[in-house]
Amino acid sequence: MVQEKKRKICFIITSRNHYARSKLILNELKRRNNVELQIIVGASALLSNYGDVSSFLKKDGFKHDFKIAMAVEGGSSLAMAKTTGIGVTEFATAFYNLEPDLVVVRGDRYEILSAAVAAAYLNIPLAHIEGGDVTGSIDESVRHAVTKLAHIHFATNKRSKDRILRMGEDPKYIFNFGCPELELIFKNKYKVSGEFRGVGNVININKPYLMIIQHSVTSEIDRNRDNITKTLQAVHELNIPTIWFWPNIDAGTDEISKGIRIFREQNNPENIYFIKNMPAEEFIGLLKKSLCLVGNSSSGIKECSYLGVPVVNIGSRQDGRMRAKNVMDTDYDKQHIKLAIERQIRRGRYEPSNIYFQKDTSRKIAQVLARTNLYTQKKFYDV
Amino acid sequence: MVQEKKRKICFIITSRNHYARSKLILNELKRRNNVELQIIVGASALLSNYGDVSSFLKKDGFKHDFKIAMAVEGGSSLAMAKTTGIGVTEFATAFYNLEPDLVVVRGDRYEILSAAVAAAYLNIPLAHIEGGDVTGSIDESVRHAVTKLAHIHFATNKRSKDRILRMGEDPKYIFNFGCPELELIFKNKYKVSGEFRGVGNVININKPYLMIIQHSVTSEIDRNRDNITKTLQAVHELNIPTIWFWPNIDAGTDEISKGIRIFREQNNPENIYFIKNMPAEEFIGLLKKSLCLVGNSSSGIKECSYLGVPVVNIGSRQDGRMRAKNVMDTDYDKQHIKLAIERQIRRGRYEPSNIYFQKDTSRKIAQVLARTNLYTQKKFYDV
Amino acid sequence: MVQEKKRKICFIITSRNHYARSKLILNELKRRNNVELQIIVGASALLSNYGDVSSFLKKDGFKHDFKIAMAVEGGSSLAMAKTTGIGVTEFATAFYNLEPDLVVVRGDRYEILSAAVAAAYLNIPLAHIEGGDVTGSIDESVRHAVTKLAHIHFATNKRSKDRILRMGEDPKYIFNFGCPELELIFKNKYKVSGEFRGVGNVININKPYLMIIQHSVTSEIDRNRDNITKTLQAVHELNIPTIWFWPNIDAGTDEISKGIRIFREQNNPENIYFIKNMPAEEFIGLLKKSLCLVGNSSSGIKECSYLGVPVVNIGSRQDGRMRAKNVMDTDYDKQHIKLAIERQIRRGRYEPSNIYFQKDTSRKIAQVLARTNLYTQKKFYDV
Amino acid sequence: MVQEKKRKICFIITSRNHYARSKLILNELKRRNNVELQIIVGASALLSNYGDVSSFLKKDGFKHDFKIAMAVEGGSSLAMAKTTGIGVTEFATAFYNLEPDLVVVRGDRYEILSAAVAAAYLNIPLAHIEGGDVTGSIDESVRHAVTKLAHIHFATNKRSKDRILRMGEDPKYIFNFGCPELELIFKNKYKVSGEFRGVGNVININKPYLMIIQHSVTSEIDRNRDNITKTLQAVHELNIPTIWFWPNIDAGTDEISKGIRIFREQNNPENIYFIKNMPAEEFIGLLKKSLCLVGNSSSGIKECSYLGVPVVNIGSRQDGRMRAKNVMDTDYDKQHIKLAIERQIRRGRYEPSNIYFQKDTSRKIAQVLARTNLYTQKKFYDV
Repeated sequence: MVQEKKRKICFIITSRNHYARSKLILNELKRRNNVELQIIVGASALLSNYGDVSSFLKKDGFKHDFKIAMAVEGGSSLAMAKTTGIGVTEFATAFYNLEPDLVVVRGDRYEILSAAVAAAYLNIPLAHIEGGDVTGSIDESVRHAVTKLAHIHFATNKRSKDRILRMGEDPKYIFNFGCPELELIFKNKYKVSGEFRGVGNVININKPYLMIIQHSVTSEIDRNRDNITKTLQAVHELNIPTIWFWPNIDAGTDEISKGIRIFREQNNPENIYFIKNMPAEEFIGLLKKSLCLVGNSSSGIKECSYLGVPVVNIGSRQDGRMRAKNVMDTDYDKQHIKLAIERQIRRGRYEPSNIYFQKDTSRKIAQVLARTNLYTQKKFYDV
Repeated sequence: MVQEKKRKICFIITSRNHYARSKLILNELKRRNNVELQIIVGASALLSNYGDVSSFLKKDGFKHDFKIAMAVEGGSSLAMAKTTGIGVTEFATAFYNLEPDLVVVRGDRYEILSAAVAAAYLNIPLAHIEGGDVTGSIDESVRHAVTKLAHIHFATNKRSKDRILRMGEDPKYIFNFGCPELELIFKNKYKVSGEFRGVGNVININKPYLMIIQHSVTSEIDRNRDNITKTLQAVHELNIPTIWFWPNIDAGTDEISKGIRIFREQNNPENIYFIKNMPAEEFIGLLKKSLCLVGNSSSGIKECSYLGVPVVNIGSRQDGRMRAKNVMDTDYDKQHIKLAIERQIRRGRYEPSNIYFQKDTSRKIAQVLARTNLYTQKKFYDV
Repeated sequence: MVQEKKRKICFIITSRNHYARSKLILNELKRRNNVELQIIVGASALLSNYGDVSSFLKKDGFKHDFKIAMAVEGGSSLAMAKTTGIGVTEFATAFYNLEPDLVVVRGDRYEILSAAVAAAYLNIPLAHIEGGDVTGSIDESVRHAVTKLAHIHFATNKRSKDRILRMGEDPKYIFNFGCPELELIFKNKYKVSGEFRGVGNVININKPYLMIIQHSVTSEIDRNRDNITKTLQAVHELNIPTIWFWPNIDAGTDEISKGIRIFREQNNPENIYFIKNMPAEEFIGLLKKSLCLVGNSSSGIKECSYLGVPVVNIGSRQDGRMRAKNVMDTDYDKQHIKLAIERQIRRGRYEPSNIYFQKDTSRKIAQVLARTNLYTQKKFYDV
Repeated sequence: MVQEKKRKICFIITSRNHYARSKLILNELKRRNNVELQIIVGASALLSNYGDVSSFLKKDGFKHDFKIAMAVEGGSSLAMAKTTGIGVTEFATAFYNLEPDLVVVRGDRYEILSAAVAAAYLNIPLAHIEGGDVTGSIDESVRHAVTKLAHIHFATNKRSKDRILRMGEDPKYIFNFGCPELELIFKNKYKVSGEFRGVGNVININKPYLMIIQHSVTSEIDRNRDNITKTLQAVHELNIPTIWFWPNIDAGTDEISKGIRIFREQNNPENIYFIKNMPAEEFIGLLKKSLCLVGNSSSGIKECSYLGVPVVNIGSRQDGRMRAKNVMDTDYDKQHIKLAIERQIRRGRYEPSNIYFQKDTSRKIAQVLARTNLYTQKKFYDV
């Protein structure tokens, strides 16, 4: 009897969110007999400041096959560009040594473009999860550039699938199985233990609280400091207990962190507890119970649509992304932000929406990854 | 009277062809009062083996503002990937120091993606010449990925303009002014001095001769050596005087060079003269007089369409590219190649085609570069 | 009359200290007619967290010719290694573009090895200031490796000069003109304006105060967090007004910063004011007035020897460095640190020492840089 | 019973010679129970043009644990510097993933400095084989810089041991066990099968023949082309059957290759057979039988001293290296080279010398690597 050769599927993880949102897929790949799962952990996923993923991986029964330290310091556009350049050479070395049959990247973070370029240039088929969305920031360019380098596409919604088709990709290789992170919620893979640590006054999570996640907007890099201060003032003045997440590593992050540090130093905001990171299950548990999510995280658009959690979305970072009714948009104005939060709190929970949800997302993605015919030479599909 | 601030336009040159095909645009930019022209020379444009552009630049009255040595040795896919990674960090450094208002890249060579990524990530608007074409090789992916990072697009033909539009780019920033390299021919910017040097028997260019340019196909990297040998055998057996160009630096080039060297060592083909590079004007002069161009160069598709020179196009490298009647396609079969060349020679000159030609291409491109409103945040244009 | 060609001397600045300690030399070079001064600013000298040097340069009438962002994030040994690798390629690009006749580096910071390698490999003569010292940490290896790549050596004391000679360097090219940073003090180039900003309670600098500078020890990287906490506890318990400097960017710095942040969060030490950086003149002014310098900075060994300021030197970082009587060594023990500080305060000011001092240091260095015969091929000088 | 933890020893191989000269040590390490041998293959050892080591490794029963493609194209000083920079980051990644207890490098090739820097900065003890020699070229600087980063030293002769001591290294960690490559000869690990392939007329190795190995001198990079031509003319005019080796990858190599190619094209030297590389055993077998070795290879100084083969050593590359009586030095003058070769042929075989030879070299080196106490913090040993 001939033993089928296992397909070597190499999954790229470059941030804490990235891992959380991919865990079910990793589980599905791991349990398949015809797959040899390879995991590369890199970029901010290795930095303790942004949530070192290694420890979570280990606890969840995974092992990484390669680690890539690639983040250039400075929190600037320049750092972002250089990180990406270094990333291309490092991922090339990793693929050269691991020899995967297929590489999987996810999302629109700037550094995943490096894995995509390395794979495509090395003639390794590339699968991309969450292409076709529309947003602001450099993410908008990164996501579509990755689409044009990728061979297999897992859109998370109908509109995105259509855009990928429009961009000339082969319809046979474009799938819409919904959003993997919503499946995590659907399967009740969350908990609220309150076992996380930050700085400031601890919040009683059994009473009402706000959650804030506001990342840098890389295309408005000079205004990040001002913008974060507006949100800090609004939340401070509202004086509602608040869990505030430090920003991710996007260009401009140092200005945001600095804004937060100085605000704390000068105002000692007693209603806010600042947290670097927590397990994905914990995060969703907290999100589900929160009064309102404020900021510009995609969790407001995706997870919260399904949870029905009210969201105040500030500024341009999520511009153009398909949204359910739970999102109220506002600009970088302290008064507007306060008003929007108050309105959303009064309005309370929304009807859950399924615009990003389907059942069996991870299993279906894993199946395609494991079984579909692979190809390398791309061809613009003229409709 | 207020002095208008000059727009700093940074032009990227990474290969001999690249320079030749951009020279008229560079002239147009240089003579404008409202433009400060910056030139970065990098990659194979600095390697004497592939035609060091610096000396040509100087002779033509240009100076470079930055030089980037980035090519990794090996002629492999891996070298191509690493070169590109190094390129991103180096272009980032160059832009950080030169502070251009606008960066211009051209074509689909793998290393231009590094300049594109660096510019886009640094929030510097990016213009791209020759987007929207369809071909084979990794070029197909590179070209469209650059489109999704770029802000201003100069397609060279109607179909390509339409594809760029389909990919979600803003119609206001997509132009079709035709192909700059054809304007070079139209303006009679060529000559035949015969002042070039190679190895093998010198060819009398006043008698009929063939020209061969066959580059690597990066997606068929294991077959390059065999494929070039087929063409060498065919051309050797035909025994027509031939000018043969060494391949460019694409992944796989070492195998092609090796194929040529070994063929020479073993067969001493007396009808072939091998040349590394020559000035663009000389090249076009020779092309115009040649019996037939054989291989897989885009010159066969573009320059030759306008010149009416018969072309035997071998293999997949130009797959999908719009072509005029002068092109006869064939596969990597010695007999097929011989037959195709013989047929094309019998057929002789074709009617010139204007599918890639328009007047005033360079002036129009320069004008847009100098005057159009610049923006950084991209937005998928949903039609 | 024949115009003498100016010698292009390229000075490398990679940290705030580095600039402060080189300023007089830069002034001497700038005012010479036979020198074209080039300045490259790189690494932590470009990071605002560690004291962006660009603004100081400009205020002092210098301009930089090239900026190099090279610091990899993580504050780890790995980050230190990668930063250095990136540095080699970036300095190579800088030298390739600036074409200096001579490159000057200073000290023993890990990243200066990258400039040294790039210069030596490019056949550009290299001058090194402060070779031959002995210390702990990776600095010990870096300093001597740079010596073996360098062509001209400016030791800062007799013993170091002898060591450079021992290592096989050519005696004609080894000089001991003393320590440039002491000349800054000798020339009264300092002031106390108190114009600096940090976090915590502002200290009245007209009353007695301590100063603390404790950097990472890269070879004891796992103990940095514990070690800094010991010093924090000691200083907190002494309850003397204290100016505390954040650590430099050496591997392990994140652990030290974290140690400080958490200590502040938990203990709110009201006697300590934390500062990121200040102008060199200000720093020396404060140092001169301070009760005692505590930590492991080379300022304790060098500047304080000449100022007669008492020093408590903690741990191994300055192991082996020649010291005057003002230095009291201690290990990482809270009680020992407290006792040592108390003893030094009781003891008060020491007699100034000249072990590191000579007159005219900067002028003499500049003269050699400008006039000495340059060579590239090194030769081990067998005595 | 407690299982002793195996020491992970990571051996770096970056060129064909490098592997050949280390093979016995690798064998010794492999057969030890207390050692886990890791092999990293990088730089020119992966390029088929310079002798891809992978296939030899496999045939000899070794496997590599990591491959590093790092060579930048151009054959220039700049390429050499950039290769080294990239090398530092790549070796850092390799060590980060392999976690060796000890790293072993050998010789003075420019790229081994990258492995040395990466290991030292990552606090991994570093052993260096063949330190303390004196030569010309950049090798002279590289070798001693590596010594100052290394923790364990295996000099190959007494004088070199003394120099390492002089440079301040700890006497307990400096060993002189002789030259590993001579042990290869002593153990009769060679053969003459004649199974190698090159270009030109095949030489009958059963009749008298010359061997030529002339590498680039990186510090005389502008004269390499001229210099190789002188040797080519001399050897061509002597008209003795000759085996000529293509140069290694040192900066300047392209000029040497070009010189050879053009000479062949113009002169068709029928007495010379040009070879890229061959197995080490074959090389030594041929060397042993040859009339004379001509050029600037260290094989002339080391292997030939022990074999008693006459050597004509041209130019400065081996300046200062301890030599036996078999070496006749000459400058880059065609007539001098011819005369020297003729004299050496007349003189014939020399008495074998033991200046570089000891018994049991590899076993002793392996034993120290496996057993000696490891340390990381270096200390200048003041005698």
